[in-house]
Amino acid sequence: MSLLTVGSVAFDAIETPFGKTDKIIGGAGTYISISSSFFTKPVNVVAVVGDDFPEEYIKTLESQGINTDGLQVKEGEKTFFWAGKYHNDMNSRDTLVTELNVLEHFDPIVPANYQDAQYVMLGNLSPQVQSTVIERLENRPKLVVMDTMNFWMDIAWDDLMKTISMVDVLSINDEEARQLSKEYSLRKAAKKIMEMGPKYLIIKKGEHGALLFHEDKVFSAPALPLEEVFDPTGAGDTFAGGFIGYLAKTDDISFDNMKKAVIYGSAMASFCVEKFGTDRLLEITEADLEARVKEFEELTVF
Amino acid sequence: MSLLTVGSVAFDAIETPFGKTDKIIGGAGTYISISSSFFTKPVNVVAVVGDDFPEEYIKTLESQGINTDGLQVKEGEKTFFWAGKYHNDMNSRDTLVTELNVLEHFDPIVPANYQDAQYVMLGNLSPQVQSTVIERLENRPKLVVMDTMNFWMDIAWDDLMKTISMVDVLSINDEEARQLSKEYSLRKAAKKIMEMGPKYLIIKKGEHGALLFHEDKVFSAPALPLEEVFDPTGAGDTFAGGFIGYLAKTDDISFDNMKKAVIYGSAMASFCVEKFGTDRLLEITEADLEARVKEFEELTVF
Repeated sequence: MSLLTVGSVAFDAIETPFGKTDKIIGGAGTYISISSSFFTKPVNVVAVVGDDFPEEYIKTLESQGINTDGLQVKEGEKTFFWAGKYHNDMNSRDTLVTELNVLEHFDPIVPANYQDAQYVMLGNLSPQVQSTVIERLENRPKLVVMDTMNFWMDIAWDDLMKTISMVDVLSINDEEARQLSKEYSLRKAAKKIMEMGPKYLIIKKGEHGALLFHEDKVFSAPALPLEEVFDPTGAGDTFAGGFIGYLAKTDDISFDNMKKAVIYGSAMASFCVEKFGTDRLLEITEADLEARVKEFEELTVF
Repeated sequence: MSLLTVGSVAFDAIETPFGKTDKIIGGAGTYISISSSFFTKPVNVVAVVGDDFPEEYIKTLESQGINTDGLQVKEGEKTFFWAGKYHNDMNSRDTLVTELNVLEHFDPIVPANYQDAQYVMLGNLSPQVQSTVIERLENRPKLVVMDTMNFWMDIAWDDLMKTISMVDVLSINDEEARQLSKEYSLRKAAKKIMEMGPKYLIIKKGEHGALLFHEDKVFSAPALPLEEVFDPTGAGDTFAGGFIGYLAKTDDISFDNMKKAVIYGSAMASFCVEKFGTDRLLEITEADLEARVKEFEELTVF
């Protein structure tokens, strides 16, 4: 089923205890689109870059089956840039640079050939941009999934509440779930957040896996205990991309299938962290993915 | 199969955001014994208390099928006492009082009728006391499980290394696994720790569940997402008691059965935190436990 993704397509400069990169391709929209394109094609991306964004990077996206008709290239402007440095434990990082550039006045365009979107993944962006995309779709998609972060809770609460009320699935991390609900217990937090609109809630817990909530049901997905996390950048977005990609491919939004989608998303994220940036995502095969999903099964079956 | 447990039988005074207790029965040996007695009887306990320890508390233990022949009562001495206060998030606490009392010179006695022990659970205690118990058993038990904590890593490293080298299963939390191995990745930490002696390692992650390692295999058990944690005291020991109790009952130490034992331990721990101290453990039924284990299944099956 046709999939639309929205999110930043950007430059990242990453430093981890294992090394550092120059400006490489990054951004939530990039990770989501590459990850979901593993399951379904085309992935119709809505995003914006500056004229400094290399043609080669756009070709990389297109070679994955990503349709860039909705990728605006702004002449005379610069691409969003983020630089960060991870601490030794890889669980925390310092942001060194954030240059909004083209994202500051991002007015998303939804091309006519994207209008049949049945599955929509709103990657982390200003909630106002996220809701604009929904409003610019003529028909309500079958499933709208939204990712966001604490930053928008701090500076754009009302916009955030509006967008959250419009989506089916919200994906945030445990700290953010606590901030959003003002509840420490994740079970209580989930109840409160689902009263804000979304019928489903995913709480991402990094190395501790993820929880999927719906009505009074819960599913707990483990994370694969890895020997080495090389670069965690994009893991959450890769998870989201795998989640929506699997749902779009199978076109089944039952709770049972969403559980599987969470596992496929987790498997994709477990690859993402094995190399810098999107490198590992661009080389895995279907056999790699199925073997990884099997590892998740072995990890949890008792 | 016959089970021997060692650990503190003590007084606890607990304060949580929900209320506070006077001195109530507590201690690792108490939680382990009550939890394991749910699976197999008798539980042969090795411990020490002072003459201030109420006869009524000993009767409570005995009514659960706990054999107190190895519980020394020291005339003129006082029982170990711990007082603590939990913070609002229930994940951290301040120790207000620690009075070692009878534990300071604890010389464990293993009565003759305990000598057939096939399963041994060494609750958190000085590693020197733990190894003494193993040495005082005429025959090597089928399975020795050891719990310990960071405190002993700080002050009794050599004794700890000796005891760890003597056991089959080590049970510690994630922070402690990192401290013990000097590795941040839990997978790497597990490898290093299993080189110290234990063939199996359990890493407890509190609200994030537990990991069981053996050779190159891993099992990830979730924690039940609870609406309310009323009092976390003793949850780790209750887990350990359920783990060894299930193994002693089924007398099967295969990796597959250990996975089940981890789930039964987790289920027992999820009850423990629902009321103060041992209150909830003393009222649950077999049907309660089976229903809870079923919840764990539903939580993880995909």
